[in-house]
Parts: sequence; C-alpha cells; structure tokens
Amino acid sequence: MPIAVLGTGPVGQTIAAKLAELGHEVTVGTRDVEVAMARTEVDMFGNPPFPEWQAQHPDIGVATLSDAAGAAELVVNATNGAGSINALEIAGEENLTGKVLLDIANPLDFSQGMPPSLLVSNTDSLGEQIQRRFPDTRIVKALNTMSAYLMVDPKQFAGGDHTVFLSGNDDDAKATVAELLRSFGWADVIDLGDITTARGAEMVLPIWVRLMGALDTPMFQFKIVR
Amino acid sequence: MPIAVLGTGPVGQTIAAKLAELGHEVTVGTRDVEVAMARTEVDMFGNPPFPEWQAQHPDIGVATLSDAAGAAELVVNATNGAGSINALEIAGEENLTGKVLLDIANPLDFSQGMPPSLLVSNTDSLGEQIQRRFPDTRIVKALNTMSAYLMVDPKQFAGGDHTVFLSGNDDDAKATVAELLRSFGWADVIDLGDITTARGAEMVLPIWVRLMGALDTPMFQFKIVR
Repeated sequence: MPIAVLGTGPVGQTIAAKLAELGHEVTVGTRDVEVAMARTEVDMFGNPPFPEWQAQHPDIGVATLSDAAGAAELVVNATNGAGSINALEIAGEENLTGKVLLDIANPLDFSQGMPPSLLVSNTDSLGEQIQRRFPDTRIVKALNTMSAYLMVDPKQFAGGDHTVFLSGNDDDAKATVAELLRSFGWADVIDLGDITTARGAEMVLPIWVRLMGALDTPMFQFKIVR
Repeated sequence: MPIAVLGTGPVGQTIAAKLAELGHEVTVGTRDVEVAMARTEVDMFGNPPFPEWQAQHPDIGVATLSDAAGAAELVVNATNGAGSINALEIAGEENLTGKVLLDIANPLDFSQGMPPSLLVSNTDSLGEQIQRRFPDTRIVKALNTMSAYLMVDPKQFAGGDHTVFLSGNDDDAKATVAELLRSFGWADVIDLGDITTARGAEMVLPIWVRLMGALDTPMFQFKIVR
C-alpha cells in the first residue's frame, strides 16, 4: 500500500523503515526537502541527521508534505504535535480527503521545561482537533503511548505481552490500522472508542514521562491486565 | 496503627475494612455522623447504605472528620475528589499536621455528564492542591488508578501481577504507604517521584473510564511491563 509518513524525526524514521520492510511503498513527507536533506547535525536525542538515515533506506522516497500525502492511500502523522495541524494544512486537505490518517503525535508543551505538559487535554485532544479540522479524513489515534522503538517491534520486549490503544470515529479505518499494527507484531489491540477517547490516550503522556524518569529508561510499556 | 479513613463511600468502606482486618484501629470519618448513620438508600453504584456496612464492621469506629483525623497516626483521603479540600479543612489542619495522608481521591468532574473529565489536570493535580493547602501534612498519592476492589486485594486478580504508583515529597511517608500497600498484597510499587507526579497518576483516569467502557468491566489494571 502507498503510505506517506509525515515527519522526519525518530518516530517518522522508525515507522517508515518498518513499513518499507513490510513491503509498502513508503514516502517520507517533510516541509522542505532541501532543508531536510541538508541536515548535518544529530537531533536532541542523539539520532543521526536525516540524510544519513535516508541513505540507509534508498527504497524510501522523500517528498514535500503535499506530494507525499497526495500519492498515499494511508497517511501517518509523525510530526511534532505542536505543529501537526499546520503540517497537515500544508499537506493539503484535498490530499487527505477520504484517507485513513494514523495520528501518533502528542501535543507536548516543552515551554515550561522538562517534563513536558500537554498543549491540549482533558476536554479535548490533538486527535479531536485534527478530526475537526479535517472532517473528511478518517483519523485513528494509536501508538502515541510508547517509545518509537516499541511501536514497530513490540515482540522485542516482554515477548510482546503489552497493549496498544485505538481511538477513532470510523470502524473501517480502525480495522485498517489494527491490521497494520498486527503486521508490526501487536497482539493486544484495544479499541477505546470514538476519537474523543484520544483524550485518554494522550493524557497517558504525563505518567509516561515520569515513569521514564523513575525507571531511567523509555523501554517500558503499559499492559492492560484483565 | 490508629488510622482514620475519611469518606463513607465504596473506597472508604473497602479500605477501612481491609485495614481493620489487618489489625489496625480504624475510624471512618464523615461530615455528619447522624446523617451517615441515618442513610437507608443504596448509592449510585448499588452499594448498600452505610449503616448496613457499619453493622457488619462493629470493630470500625465512626466519627466526625475532625475526631477521626485527630485520633489517627495516618489519614486516608477517600472523600469525593471535588470536595476533598473542603473535607480536609473540616477535619482540621491541626489534626493533620505532621501526619501521613494517603490521598486516593480523583478530581472527577461529572458536570458535563459521562464519562467524567478532571477538575484539575496537566499543570496541577488534586494531590498538589492538598499538599499546598496543608504544607505540614505529608501527602502520598496512591491507589487512585484502579477499582476499589483491586486496591486492597491485588492478588485476587491476575495473581497480583500489576502495578501501583506512589507520588509524594516525603520519602519516609512514601515508605510508610509502600509498607501498607505491601501488607495489602502489592508487589509492584513504583515511586514516580515528588507530589507533582500526581498529575500523571490522576491523568490516567480519562483512559481508565474509557477502558471500563471498552472492556465493560472495572476489573482491569495497568501493569508497567519493563
């Protein structure tokens, strides 16, 4: 399936590489291809610059946000949550209409330092904001409650015995994303309900960042025991 | 240990009964003893009225909030989160000074219907509000992320293989609460850090209520797999 992964950071890179490995035609979308391909510095997490990653993944295309989204059947939002609505507007509503959009972004607010709080929460969520702004796109929130390294390879860790959540208004879109997640190795996929349940999934982040501090690693996951 | 459990609802009843079973001297504190002992109706969850429960637990005292707190070494806040600060003010700052206060309450806002949102979240929490209002009391947030039935008997469920969180500024107070939790059967107790980490623990509630809907039961729990 032709898939656009919007965002060149660690989440975008990780998701894009896995999708390509699974045989999908993957294009990474970025605001300015020249700028992305001219990067020479490691990011804030110590990851290598984008061109280095791209050279290791010659089967993955790089295009503008709108070209990537326009050519795709399914779009992944792996952009910075604070800029996601703007990035999707640049991608173009017409390039998103009718499509499934897997939204992984978290609306993290780093303006008050570490650990981050949320830019939107409690009575609204980024998932809902995106769904309201793009009413003809089928938003599915998923994978935002864990480290990128676990998103695409849950079985590397605790034998895959942990949980991923889905939120969205469109059952077919959630089925499409659930199938993609199962192809990543996910066994325990819980459908929380409509897109308003993204509030719950995004509000997991404050305990996630504190757990990362308490456990001194991002390599942990939530399992819903029942 | 003389313990006051403030609140006569299902959480208060469940915690008080367990503490008494473990040999502690337990007093349930309520705003008006006469009113509580005159109740004849089941609550919104179908639980029997308080006097019926009290008759089954003759070893557990019933007193005003201030009398209960004044006589206790450790105080449990099992009041409705929306009224917790007020209830603790009625209990009296002088009756709480220097004591460990285990805060189980969640600041749930039912004003917009079900499922509830939170009255305070993201950049503050009920745990922090209580700590600020009672600076000489040692607040420990715990047990607020699960059904009351699991709080006091974690091993009844999945062999106890799930997680409880602690937040608080005072390490000795957290050690006291952790010991109490272990006496309930808890094996996996994670200390999230200072009382600001109560934001994370309280912000779990929005996904908790949605999971209760999706799974059609409150009998599930979070396990931090690592």
